[in-house]
Amino acid sequence: MHAIVIQTPGGPEALQWTEVPDPEPGPGEVVVEVTAAAVNRADVLQRRGHYPPPPGASPYPGLECSGVITATGPGVADHRVGERVCALLAGGGYAQRVAVPEGQLLPVPAGLSVQESAALPEVACTVWSNVVDVARLRKGDTLLVHGGGGGIGTFAVQLGVALGARVMVTARAAKHDRLRALGADLAIDYTGTDFVAAVREVTDGRGADVVLDIVGGAYLGRNIDVLAPGGRIAVIGLQGGRTGELDLGALMAKRGTVAATTLRARTVADKARIVRGVREQVWPLVDAGAIRPVIDRTLPMSDAAEAHRLMEASEHLGKILLLP
Amino acid sequence: MHAIVIQTPGGPEALQWTEVPDPEPGPGEVVVEVTAAAVNRADVLQRRGHYPPPPGASPYPGLECSGVITATGPGVADHRVGERVCALLAGGGYAQRVAVPEGQLLPVPAGLSVQESAALPEVACTVWSNVVDVARLRKGDTLLVHGGGGGIGTFAVQLGVALGARVMVTARAAKHDRLRALGADLAIDYTGTDFVAAVREVTDGRGADVVLDIVGGAYLGRNIDVLAPGGRIAVIGLQGGRTGELDLGALMAKRGTVAATTLRARTVADKARIVRGVREQVWPLVDAGAIRPVIDRTLPMSDAAEAHRLMEASEHLGKILLLP
Repeated sequence: MHAIVIQTPGGPEALQWTEVPDPEPGPGEVVVEVTAAAVNRADVLQRRGHYPPPPGASPYPGLECSGVITATGPGVADHRVGERVCALLAGGGYAQRVAVPEGQLLPVPAGLSVQESAALPEVACTVWSNVVDVARLRKGDTLLVHGGGGGIGTFAVQLGVALGARVMVTARAAKHDRLRALGADLAIDYTGTDFVAAVREVTDGRGADVVLDIVGGAYLGRNIDVLAPGGRIAVIGLQGGRTGELDLGALMAKRGTVAATTLRARTVADKARIVRGVREQVWPLVDAGAIRPVIDRTLPMSDAAEAHRLMEASEHLGKILLLP
Repeated sequence: MHAIVIQTPGGPEALQWTEVPDPEPGPGEVVVEVTAAAVNRADVLQRRGHYPPPPGASPYPGLECSGVITATGPGVADHRVGERVCALLAGGGYAQRVAVPEGQLLPVPAGLSVQESAALPEVACTVWSNVVDVARLRKGDTLLVHGGGGGIGTFAVQLGVALGARVMVTARAAKHDRLRALGADLAIDYTGTDFVAAVREVTDGRGADVVLDIVGGAYLGRNIDVLAPGGRIAVIGLQGGRTGELDLGALMAKRGTVAATTLRARTVADKARIVRGVREQVWPLVDAGAIRPVIDRTLPMSDAAEAHRLMEASEHLGKILLLP
C-alpha cells in the first residue's frame, strides 16, 4: 500500500506518499481500508519531529480516519469484515490501510457519509474527555473555547451548546459568523480584545465555568482571571508555550482547577473507555443532527503537504480531510 | 459572654479574652454553647490580619467547635435545644456561644465525648472535600499528605487508610512513629529527604495518585514530579508561597490536575453539601472507630495565645482544643 512517510522531520515537504508494507491486524485489532483521514495539529508537530509516535504505534501520521473493515485479528468479537466505521488512531491514518484496536472504533453516525465521519473521532474524544470527563461541564455553565475556529473548537462549540452550556470562543474575526451560526454566544477576536474583560462583561462579572485551552503558558494567568468560582481549565495544547507562573492564591480564591491532558499517550484500555463515553453521550447528538462535522475542504492524501501549510497558516475553519 | 477578640492584628498576645454581646440565632441558625473549640492554622493567619472573616461571619476566630444547642432561630426544623453537636464554623468558635447555620452541624460520633468531637468538623470537611470530592481518591491509590503531623494531616492519613489507599506523609522525624501508628506506609522527613525520590522508590517509579498539599508555591514543581499518570494535586495551604512556575508540558505528560481550594469562603449551601458528604461517607468511619480525633492537648480558651505559639512552632501533633 501507500502511506505518507516522514523520512526526515521538517517542513510540509517532508510528507512523502511512499510505498510501504501493508499492516497486519494484531490480537483485538482490525484493519481498516481508509476512505478518509483527518488532519490534526499534532500531525504537524510529529512532522517537525516534536511529537514522536508512542511505542507500538504506526510511524505514519494520522490520528483519525474512516473506512471499511477488511480484516480482523484474533479475539475480535464485535466487528466484522465489510463494516463501515470511523476510528481513533495512535497514528497511521495517512495511509491506504491501518490497523486499529477494536475499542477505538465508532459507527458511522446516521446521516453522515463514511468520508464525513473521518472528521469526528479525534475531536469528539478530545473534547468529550476534557470538557465532560475531566472538567465536568454542566447544563447552564459558561464554556470558553480558545481557538474556536479549528476542528477541536468547532466541535467543542457544538457539544457545549448541545449539553446546555453558554459557549464563548476566541478566534480570528473572519471566523466569527460561522462560529455564531454553530451556536457560540460570543466570539472574541483575540488579536484586539482582552478575552477576560469580554467574558466578564457578558456574565455579570462571573466568568467562565470551564475553559478549553490550546494556548498553554501564555494564557495561564488570564485563564485563571477569567474563571468563575469553582471553575475548571483543561489545557490540551501548548501553542503559547509550555510554562507559566501559577498564582495558587488566585486559583484558591476561585477554588479552581487546572488540568492538562493528552489523548494519544493514553493506554488502549483508557482510549476504549473514552470511545465508549463518546459513543454513549456524544454519538446520539451526532445521530440527531445536533452536532455536525465541520469540514473545511478535502485534498488528495498525496497532497498532505498542502493540508499542513493551510493548518499552519490557521486559514481553515473546521477539519481538513485527506483522501487516499 | 466572653470571646477571644483580636483588637489589633499581630502576635499571639493579640488574642484577648473579652466580654462581648451574646450571638442571636438568625433564620436557619442555632446557637451552640461551646464545650470546646479547635485551633486551625487559618486562625493564626486571621490573628496576623492576613485572613479576614468572610462577610456576615463572626469577627472572632475559630472554625470548628462542639457543644450543646441552647437556642434555635426561625425555620430550624431538624435540630432542637439540648442536642449535643459539633459544627463547622465560618468564625466565632473561640467564644462561650456561637451562632451556626443548621446545615453545618454534625452529630457527636459514637464513642466520642462532646469535647473530643470539636477536633473533627473542620479537618473532616477540608480533607473530604479535597481528597474525595475534588481529587476523587480511589481504593488502591497512593495518597501523599504534606504536613502529615498537623490536624489536617493526621486526619487525612486515617481517612486515606480507611478508604483503602496507601498513604505517605511528609513530617518532622519526631512525628513519624505516631503517623505510622495511624496507618501511614511511609513517613518522609522533609528536612533531609527528597520526597519525590522517596515516593518513587516505594511505588516502582509510579508516584502518587493524589497529593494533599499545604505548602503551595515552593512544592508546585516537585508535586508535579511526584505525580502518577492521571494524578491530582489539591492545594489547601500556601505556607511555602502563593506562586510557582507551572510546567504545563510536564502536567500534560502526566495528564495531571492542580486544584486549589478553601472551605471558609464557600456559600452556606455549599458548606451544607460538604457537611452532608462528610456525614454520609466519613462519620460512619468515625462511629466505627476507623478514624479517631488526634488531640495534642487542651488549654483554657483564655490561653489561646499559648495555643497559637505551639502551632506556629509546629510542635503539636494533631489538634489543640480550647475550653471556654
